[in-house]
Amino acid sequence: MIKVGIIGATGYTGVELLRLLAAHPVVEVSAITSRQQSGKKVADLFPNLRGKYNLCFQSPDDSPLDDCDVVFSATPNGVAMQHAQGLIAAGKKFIDLSADFRLKDVKLWTKWYGMTHASPELLNRAVYGLPEINREQIKSASLIACPGCYPTSSQLALIPLLANKLIDNDIVIDAKSGTSGAGRKESVANLFAEAGDSIKAYGVDGHRHLPEILQGLNHFSSESVSLTFVPHLMPMIRGILITAYANLIELDVNLQSVYEDYYQGEPFVDILPAGMSPQTRSVKGSNMCQISINRPQSGTKVVVLAVEDNLVKGAAGQAVQCMNLCCGLEETTGLDIIGLLP
Amino acid sequence: MIKVGIIGATGYTGVELLRLLAAHPVVEVSAITSRQQSGKKVADLFPNLRGKYNLCFQSPDDSPLDDCDVVFSATPNGVAMQHAQGLIAAGKKFIDLSADFRLKDVKLWTKWYGMTHASPELLNRAVYGLPEINREQIKSASLIACPGCYPTSSQLALIPLLANKLIDNDIVIDAKSGTSGAGRKESVANLFAEAGDSIKAYGVDGHRHLPEILQGLNHFSSESVSLTFVPHLMPMIRGILITAYANLIELDVNLQSVYEDYYQGEPFVDILPAGMSPQTRSVKGSNMCQISINRPQSGTKVVVLAVEDNLVKGAAGQAVQCMNLCCGLEETTGLDIIGLLP
Amino acid sequence: MIKVGIIGATGYTGVELLRLLAAHPVVEVSAITSRQQSGKKVADLFPNLRGKYNLCFQSPDDSPLDDCDVVFSATPNGVAMQHAQGLIAAGKKFIDLSADFRLKDVKLWTKWYGMTHASPELLNRAVYGLPEINREQIKSASLIACPGCYPTSSQLALIPLLANKLIDNDIVIDAKSGTSGAGRKESVANLFAEAGDSIKAYGVDGHRHLPEILQGLNHFSSESVSLTFVPHLMPMIRGILITAYANLIELDVNLQSVYEDYYQGEPFVDILPAGMSPQTRSVKGSNMCQISINRPQSGTKVVVLAVEDNLVKGAAGQAVQCMNLCCGLEETTGLDIIGLLP
Amino acid sequence: MIKVGIIGATGYTGVELLRLLAAHPVVEVSAITSRQQSGKKVADLFPNLRGKYNLCFQSPDDSPLDDCDVVFSATPNGVAMQHAQGLIAAGKKFIDLSADFRLKDVKLWTKWYGMTHASPELLNRAVYGLPEINREQIKSASLIACPGCYPTSSQLALIPLLANKLIDNDIVIDAKSGTSGAGRKESVANLFAEAGDSIKAYGVDGHRHLPEILQGLNHFSSESVSLTFVPHLMPMIRGILITAYANLIELDVNLQSVYEDYYQGEPFVDILPAGMSPQTRSVKGSNMCQISINRPQSGTKVVVLAVEDNLVKGAAGQAVQCMNLCCGLEETTGLDIIGLLP
Repeated sequence: MIKVGIIGATGYTGVELLRLLAAHPVVEVSAITSRQQSGKKVADLFPNLRGKYNLCFQSPDDSPLDDCDVVFSATPNGVAMQHAQGLIAAGKKFIDLSADFRLKDVKLWTKWYGMTHASPELLNRAVYGLPEINREQIKSASLIACPGCYPTSSQLALIPLLANKLIDNDIVIDAKSGTSGAGRKESVANLFAEAGDSIKAYGVDGHRHLPEILQGLNHFSSESVSLTFVPHLMPMIRGILITAYANLIELDVNLQSVYEDYYQGEPFVDILPAGMSPQTRSVKGSNMCQISINRPQSGTKVVVLAVEDNLVKGAAGQAVQCMNLCCGLEETTGLDIIGLLP
Repeated sequence: MIKVGIIGATGYTGVELLRLLAAHPVVEVSAITSRQQSGKKVADLFPNLRGKYNLCFQSPDDSPLDDCDVVFSATPNGVAMQHAQGLIAAGKKFIDLSADFRLKDVKLWTKWYGMTHASPELLNRAVYGLPEINREQIKSASLIACPGCYPTSSQLALIPLLANKLIDNDIVIDAKSGTSGAGRKESVANLFAEAGDSIKAYGVDGHRHLPEILQGLNHFSSESVSLTFVPHLMPMIRGILITAYANLIELDVNLQSVYEDYYQGEPFVDILPAGMSPQTRSVKGSNMCQISINRPQSGTKVVVLAVEDNLVKGAAGQAVQCMNLCCGLEETTGLDIIGLLP
Repeated sequence: MIKVGIIGATGYTGVELLRLLAAHPVVEVSAITSRQQSGKKVADLFPNLRGKYNLCFQSPDDSPLDDCDVVFSATPNGVAMQHAQGLIAAGKKFIDLSADFRLKDVKLWTKWYGMTHASPELLNRAVYGLPEINREQIKSASLIACPGCYPTSSQLALIPLLANKLIDNDIVIDAKSGTSGAGRKESVANLFAEAGDSIKAYGVDGHRHLPEILQGLNHFSSESVSLTFVPHLMPMIRGILITAYANLIELDVNLQSVYEDYYQGEPFVDILPAGMSPQTRSVKGSNMCQISINRPQSGTKVVVLAVEDNLVKGAAGQAVQCMNLCCGLEETTGLDIIGLLP
Repeated sequence: MIKVGIIGATGYTGVELLRLLAAHPVVEVSAITSRQQSGKKVADLFPNLRGKYNLCFQSPDDSPLDDCDVVFSATPNGVAMQHAQGLIAAGKKFIDLSADFRLKDVKLWTKWYGMTHASPELLNRAVYGLPEINREQIKSASLIACPGCYPTSSQLALIPLLANKLIDNDIVIDAKSGTSGAGRKESVANLFAEAGDSIKAYGVDGHRHLPEILQGLNHFSSESVSLTFVPHLMPMIRGILITAYANLIELDVNLQSVYEDYYQGEPFVDILPAGMSPQTRSVKGSNMCQISINRPQSGTKVVVLAVEDNLVKGAAGQAVQCMNLCCGLEETTGLDIIGLLP
């Protein structure tokens, strides 16, 4: 059994990691840290876990992670970068679900996250945990930076077009997310009575996932991508839908085949048949990203639709997928979950 | 024009008062106090009010209420009892939407609200603002304690049965409320991702509205009522449904007529025809309480269903109704609002 | 009093017309037709209207509209075009909320609506009922084609840019709508358990509102607009948010001022201050369209956000606004409604 | 491998059976019948199943069930009673999720379901599939009548009190259900715009689950139970909460212990610690029933709260639990699922 520790499992990505790992056949969660909840049973905080975990949250001061083979960090930004060096030095695989190691450019990171980075020397060592793009690197990584929720579906939606040089560099991503993306923390804006039965755009002038998406897309583009990214808050709990708009520069192409070929054999990317529009509910609770490729009225604009569960493929599921890869397990282990529909 | 001031209009009952008073033909809102939001435009906090109010929140230290004829208090419990004496002494009508003056028994109040009452001498002077029961007293009141949201529909639902001695004293109220009842304050439990797509009971061992409902029902009962009151949190924004269960002691009675007679001429109580089940959406945004009376399978149990908008008939609307009465206006002025369906 | 008749008031735009007209000071609704519901009280179908209407639905065969001054048609597409000629000939103002008279080009209409038009000769006589653009024509019109819900906010959002020649002709509109836009008819796709807690795009290859939006935008563009329009279904009841993306060709411009100037004095268009993002809930139940204009990171892409209530400004409210204009009333009569927030 | 067939898998219990059986290690779904969807892939109807099933719906005329060991029927009431005799005679285990075999009294069945029963002779042979009560009988059954959704949690909530003679016979069940309980069929009443952001009671005068609950409770009561059962429709997709009220006749008892003892060792009944209120979201997608037992203010009224997922423990999950039992498998096989929270 692989011994797993989780730092900061009191939020939504934390409880989702616990849900997924409970069903993982070769993993044992042996430690969960939280200074604030120290001594409390995880099943008291998250009653869906009753009967599955007897673990209590432990103070990080008690070194509960010493015996772990793999450590996930599900903390707010700025925490993982404090721990990474020590854990890697102790021979553990460190899988970070926060943004601390996602950007390669430390200046860019500082600009968008408003902090000085505690371990800039690790940025190049960190492997960006998007298996469909970086599978081989992930297999041998000791420090994995799991992608953000929006960046996961955004990159999966657009990379086949860029990699095949089918579009120009002017890209619009209109993204819609459920409120769980804002995390499990006190807030007025995300109250049911505020976010319910209503929608709004936010971060229009610049969302932190913008530079991350750009970094990923620019890898596949000869010209620097000019990206407009507008996220929206939806009155739903889980799920992200990306509607991406781009301009075709090559019109004589079967886009459906391009995508089917690009993701052939991928266990967690599902190219829908032409004409089927993805719905977030089809992937609720699952690690799947469903994509549909459209060319309205056979024009020059291509519209890519992609859905994921922001807490699974957009966070905890992808982290487990990375763990499977870097631990030499079958990539799909513990992740063969069907979306909860309805 | 009647000059109105509002203390603490930064919550949901506050914004609802502002919505209703903006449409009131003989009222001018001349002052709104909030220490925290002092200087901020109300329309910046509540964008639905843009173009309707130019007012800014003012610090209470600047005595903005001095010119007011009527003062509403829409603050958390424990605040209004500090101001009431002074405002009444200054000749103003004081209408409190909090719980400070609802209970006549100061010991009971202290027990349930966990505070020492600042103005116990005013408890007997305060008139309980349920117009369908207390209309004449409200007309001449200078201090009005508006009923709680649950107590409003609970009392309207049950009083005709008690007043007509049709039931025994064993009563169950299973109450369901939208999340706006919890107010506009930072919270984890009322996040969309917590309260959405889920329901739960709360306060099963004793909710603060229990003694208030009991006080109201006992007025109409020879025997002390034995009440079980269980509120539930619903994944909706506005609305309360009361499902009340009682035991008939008089079976040879036309319950439909009893209710239609009891509330004949009432502008804001609507007895539905037999067989029509009330829905909260029919009264969304309106000051109406719709009630249906049922006797399942012609047995001895009577089931009364009552719906209201917790922020209107259960709070701000009822407060305006009381203001109309105590200011000598037509009771329905500014309250002739149709529910927003769908 | 103006006598008003409504054809087919059994859907959501119908009940919304009834809500608005009940509060209209110089209107009396004297007839409501529905073959299917003939004889049924409107308040039995829509319990929010109890106490406000004693009217029953009448069969159109009984000529209930003969006495009316104004007739609204709130039927499915293809019905109004059968009645228009006769009603206009009888001297009535005819205000159609369906799509029958929105497009000027009959071939285009036939292509998108899949029917032969019954009154093509009326297409040029029909005035497109968007008061902010067509106010003078509406004042003297006898046949008014109320805009679709998406076209209303889409045109209001984009026309100032086109009219001022600030953008090129490549426009993307990513539109989000509540489910009431799909109407009150039996359906699996719009069940709560299907449309709840999930989102999806639909009509990606071509939605019927596309040619209508294009017709409206092309009026203000020297070059034919190339429009990509993708609507999305939201898990909410009311509300539309338009996120429009365009490319600036003139960078040295104060976009905020352009919009404030363009809509100066408009009672139902509200340009939000820079940095405030519109939410559909701020206009729930109101006739307002709130717009914000953004230029992310001071680039060349302009992002316009616009919200409306699809059943009010997007349908029944706009129809009443048009009625006010063509009947010589103050444009805002009966429409001074504050959004229901929360 | 056990070969499983499903009759009528086009509704919500059908797709839920398919979700659960896909993860079941010793089951293969070999046939799915639907006359209407014949020839269509199940994954085209339910996109969450893509990649998990290659099966198409087959016409029942093609005898696709001949090779099956177990047949589930997930059809509307009145269908299973046509098939049961033949399938049992052919040696198959027949597990019915409809109401056809739930009541032992054929007259009662006819009264509540308004049909003549096609196989009254099977009613006594049918075993009521509530494993916590009927485990041994289920093990040897060939015809299993799975309980209704409300009856499952209602009986689990109340039987310990009756079996221990702790309450009198006057019981109130106030039940709340998500809209998926109404099934996946065209409807106006269950549209998102009708059932969303609103609640209502229904079937107050008598719901079909009333006689079923009574039959179950009367087994454990010396005196005939007098039950008031009022179901309510909630604006959520999945989940049932039962709030049951009864009168204690034995006050000197530790109710918490009574329940913990009664359900000791039960894999799918979880007695919550005192003071923890169950939420439907904790069991979303899982086969668990979580129960809390309360005695408000130490009085004589006992309030039992029970939550379940109506499509899992209230339907498909319980059916699989029964299949496991009657096929000699470990009862929990394939059902070890954690609720999807948030």
